[in-house]
Amino acid sequence: RVDPDRLWDSLMEMAKIGPGVAGGNNRQTLTDADAEGRALFQSWCEAAGLTMGLDKMGNMFARREGTEDLPAVYVGSHLDTQPTGGKYDGVLGVLGGLELIRTLNDLNIKTRHPIVVTNWTNEEGTRFAPAMLASGVFAGVHDQAWAEDKTDAEGKRFGDELDRIGWRGDEEVGARRDDMRAFFELHIEQGPILEAEGKDIGVVTHGQGLSWTQVTVTGKESHTGSTPMPMRKNAGLAMARILEKVEEIALAHAPHAVGAAGHIDIYPNSRNVIPGKAVFTVDFRSPDLATIEEMEGEMRIAAQKIVDDMGLTVEFEKTGGFDPVTFDEGCVTAVRNAAERLGYSHQNIISGAGHDACWINRVCPTAMIMTPCVDGLSHNEAEEITKDWARAGADVLLHAVVETAEI
Amino acid sequence: RVDPDRLWDSLMEMAKIGPGVAGGNNRQTLTDADAEGRALFQSWCEAAGLTMGLDKMGNMFARREGTEDLPAVYVGSHLDTQPTGGKYDGVLGVLGGLELIRTLNDLNIKTRHPIVVTNWTNEEGTRFAPAMLASGVFAGVHDQAWAEDKTDAEGKRFGDELDRIGWRGDEEVGARRDDMRAFFELHIEQGPILEAEGKDIGVVTHGQGLSWTQVTVTGKESHTGSTPMPMRKNAGLAMARILEKVEEIALAHAPHAVGAAGHIDIYPNSRNVIPGKAVFTVDFRSPDLATIEEMEGEMRIAAQKIVDDMGLTVEFEKTGGFDPVTFDEGCVTAVRNAAERLGYSHQNIISGAGHDACWINRVCPTAMIMTPCVDGLSHNEAEEITKDWARAGADVLLHAVVETAEI
Ligand SMILES: NC(=O)NCCC(=O)O
Ligand SMILES: NC(=O)NCCC(=O)O
Repeated sequence: RVDPDRLWDSLMEMAKIGPGVAGGNNRQTLTDADAEGRALFQSWCEAAGLTMGLDKMGNMFARREGTEDLPAVYVGSHLDTQPTGGKYDGVLGVLGGLELIRTLNDLNIKTRHPIVVTNWTNEEGTRFAPAMLASGVFAGVHDQAWAEDKTDAEGKRFGDELDRIGWRGDEEVGARRDDMRAFFELHIEQGPILEAEGKDIGVVTHGQGLSWTQVTVTGKESHTGSTPMPMRKNAGLAMARILEKVEEIALAHAPHAVGAAGHIDIYPNSRNVIPGKAVFTVDFRSPDLATIEEMEGEMRIAAQKIVDDMGLTVEFEKTGGFDPVTFDEGCVTAVRNAAERLGYSHQNIISGAGHDACWINRVCPTAMIMTPCVDGLSHNEAEEITKDWARAGADVLLHAVVETAEI
Repeated sequence: RVDPDRLWDSLMEMAKIGPGVAGGNNRQTLTDADAEGRALFQSWCEAAGLTMGLDKMGNMFARREGTEDLPAVYVGSHLDTQPTGGKYDGVLGVLGGLELIRTLNDLNIKTRHPIVVTNWTNEEGTRFAPAMLASGVFAGVHDQAWAEDKTDAEGKRFGDELDRIGWRGDEEVGARRDDMRAFFELHIEQGPILEAEGKDIGVVTHGQGLSWTQVTVTGKESHTGSTPMPMRKNAGLAMARILEKVEEIALAHAPHAVGAAGHIDIYPNSRNVIPGKAVFTVDFRSPDLATIEEMEGEMRIAAQKIVDDMGLTVEFEKTGGFDPVTFDEGCVTAVRNAAERLGYSHQNIISGAGHDACWINRVCPTAMIMTPCVDGLSHNEAEEITKDWARAGADVLLHAVVETAEI
């Protein structure tokens, strides 16, 4: 069993880097705070006797050798956060992986297969869309040059920012793909189910898919005072109408569908100028691919009708997406068996969020372990978990990994 | 009569400072570009033999002495622009005033009353709300310390930025209030009426009033993927519903009412975070004060109901406003007589936009002269006028001023 206090102390130590304004974190990818978090993780890995690998997308791979020259078992998640993010989203999976190594070291347990603890770059996708960018390149889903060209709100390139913070490695991205026996990602649920059901562990069988569409509505900038109502081409109003449709469409496909827009920019964003342009990103998700495609199609038709009726124009750009995922039966069973063996209550669950595991599942057998979080709240600085929940998750991770890496 | 080519050349010269991205201007108040525009205006004034006064809000007063020690006749407008503004909004009124001085110099005409050409600071209100900030302090409507404390989107203070660009003067704001015989402001219409009616000149009898309310909707940040639809507290969606109501309310009070939101900010503005907060400014206007108050009241009630139904909260802050204005009968008549005498077609008109004249009207007899603009378009880089329209406006300004300043 892991040491829950040591795990908790490490979580709290990491949370000091890139503090938020309300008790959480702002440690967005490829910022100075991200670099600092990486350095702390590296120092802990070295103290635990691990060897750090670093690829050209900044993905970190901390390796504990096995007793034989066999494919490694991977664990991990991400250390980057939302601008107003929590202390556990991603971090629990990385530091839970480190804790399992520390526990094996304490117990002097050697595994036949090596074990690698990973920190994937830019999982959140908040600074550079899409989410899970570097694990996507690793899995061969995205082109590396395309990924490096992604820009943030200030126009800074991913590739340039990776160089700037000094965390670009020499290793070709995905070079180690064929040397992976399995990948296990421990993560907080970010939803309310496990807490409501009173379960310690979610055995993640599937992940829901996602579609991000950046919608650009073009109207005509003009004076809010002297432009008569019938002459207005108000891009902000058209956006408002489309946002209402997104809600309607998601509700019509409920309960196994969600939809919202988290990103909204208005131009020129001046109090006395009718918005000439509105740019916003619609996020639709469902465990069912056809449902996602239906919602996306309905939104585009509705948006087109809204702007046509108002004499405006609209453009759509797909800026992110992944299909629903079915995790590997063997790995899922290893997780369930571990929970069972350890006496933790558990149930099957579908991940509502995207995770690096969704891409790595394409490369090697993969599964996820979920733990409850208070009120299902995540992507909020008030995100909270208990030490017992963290312990249960790390214990199950330890056992699933040891079973897969073989003693 | 004025020299239309000289006036046009000066307009084009000024438009080189703070160029926009689409042929217009971005010369927002208290930026380096604003400082550069002020210096150019000052150099022109000095070349025309005027003496520059500068008050503690950065208002500029270029004075041509009269033959007697009498109250001065004021003309002018503003040199600041919207972020994506036109070349004439404000500028025509300042440089039209300079052109009338140049014309009087050419013809060696002296007036009994002095004439002062003014550039009022921060008319646009785009960087620091409210609009017409410095003329409002001058007129005693706003407190100077309150005005200096206004901050821009980056949190920079008006007072600090005024010091930074080096355009704070020694003169107490409003000290010269009792020495003003009249104020005439020449401005483009910024609406479609004069062009549609084929008129050279709008004789501005009234100005419509305005109310700016900053609305803050507070919901709860959470994950767009893993938060079930019924648990969401989506501040962006509530905002969308309020924006639709603003449109409905304005249309219900049409034709003598308008409403829109030009400023919208969403927090944390991340693609996969349900907006936890939306801040936006609702702009309602009408020539009728009761109508403005009705629309404002209806909006607040509707917004409160929307957020109550969704389990969110809302706060309202009045960030700008002025009551409808009736301009001085004598000054208005001087404008009409001038247009008549010069043979320009004209009609009475109500200003749809706010202007420094709306505040100065409280201090001394005031009127405005309007000229058409192409398609009624303003607060847009594509704002356009013809040299003939500029000429007609400056000619009428010249005659109205000379009549008032007396030869
Ligand atoms: N786990 C998580 O919050 N990932 C961000 C990607 C997503 O939007 O689902
Ligand atoms: N003339 C003008 O555009 N003034 C800005 C103030 C307003 O919003 O009306």
